[in-house]
Amino acid sequence: MVFWKRLFTADPVAPPQDPQFGGEAVELFSNGSGEARLFFSTERDLDLYELEELCDAVGWARRPIRKVKKAIECSFLVVTLWEVRGKRRRLVGFARATSDHAFNATVWDVVVHPNQQSKGLGKALMEYTIRKLRSADISNITLFADPHVVDFYRRLGFVLDPEGIKGMFWYPD
Amino acid sequence: MVFWKRLFTADPVAPPQDPQFGGEAVELFSNGSGEARLFFSTERDLDLYELEELCDAVGWARRPIRKVKKAIECSFLVVTLWEVRGKRRRLVGFARATSDHAFNATVWDVVVHPNQQSKGLGKALMEYTIRKLRSADISNITLFADPHVVDFYRRLGFVLDPEGIKGMFWYPD
Repeated sequence: MVFWKRLFTADPVAPPQDPQFGGEAVELFSNGSGEARLFFSTERDLDLYELEELCDAVGWARRPIRKVKKAIECSFLVVTLWEVRGKRRRLVGFARATSDHAFNATVWDVVVHPNQQSKGLGKALMEYTIRKLRSADISNITLFADPHVVDFYRRLGFVLDPEGIKGMFWYPD
Repeated sequence: MVFWKRLFTADPVAPPQDPQFGGEAVELFSNGSGEARLFFSTERDLDLYELEELCDAVGWARRPIRKVKKAIECSFLVVTLWEVRGKRRRLVGFARATSDHAFNATVWDVVVHPNQQSKGLGKALMEYTIRKLRSADISNITLFADPHVVDFYRRLGFVLDPEGIKGMFWYPD
């Protein structure tokens, strides 16, 4: 197992640009030898089949590529996590958020590749997502957590049912 | 207390256009004499001070008009409920939803004027909102319910914490 060395955690004033990424790319981790690096990006022009492969790796149900494309286009924020070795990059993490661009955001589809789990990357991915939403002046960051990740989100500062507010899902009769 | 007569509930194939509304306007209720009618509209060009007055009437905390404007512009769906008497119309209900336009929607800011509560309008407003989201092929309709409205949403088909999925809100340290 590779342990990643955290390079920096604060939101950089001027995020480094990487020619391999179209948008902002923030280098957060490097392994000991420097052969592999990990980047966050908010660029949403990604290979949807690579995203599908990542979601398959954690056992999520398949979704129509056409709808995934639309959802990514219409999300307020898309965060991708890339492992970069030389000129090759591989998608190893993903998260996105819907929002009204003013008050509320809801985080969906948080995933880290199984090979890269238990190294603090899920935490870093969510911290990056929260920073991005807060820097966009979103005051209310919400999500719906599966039972096995409630404690993970709690450690990140998420509160379960605050003031008795309950998450509800509509199902057709 | 005026009891409204429900004119129709099914999603009309061709919703009637009303010259008082810029967008689609669906007449759902009429009182006995026909002097007053109630319309739903998805037109989002509304007087934000009238919306503020409605939110004040139910005791919600004031929010900056600039941010409310942005939130309405960037919501996926905005539903307004109007009482129309002659040439005058008055905003008596509101709901909106954020979405990724593909899979998920989250309903926010559901409000009915206190003078118009307990007449089935909140139910009709939510049923209209759900129909609109379903007709846009949104499969997952979610919301965060205050404790005193959990039963109201439950009667509409919303399920609390389905499969143990929990609503969580992030708070800064």
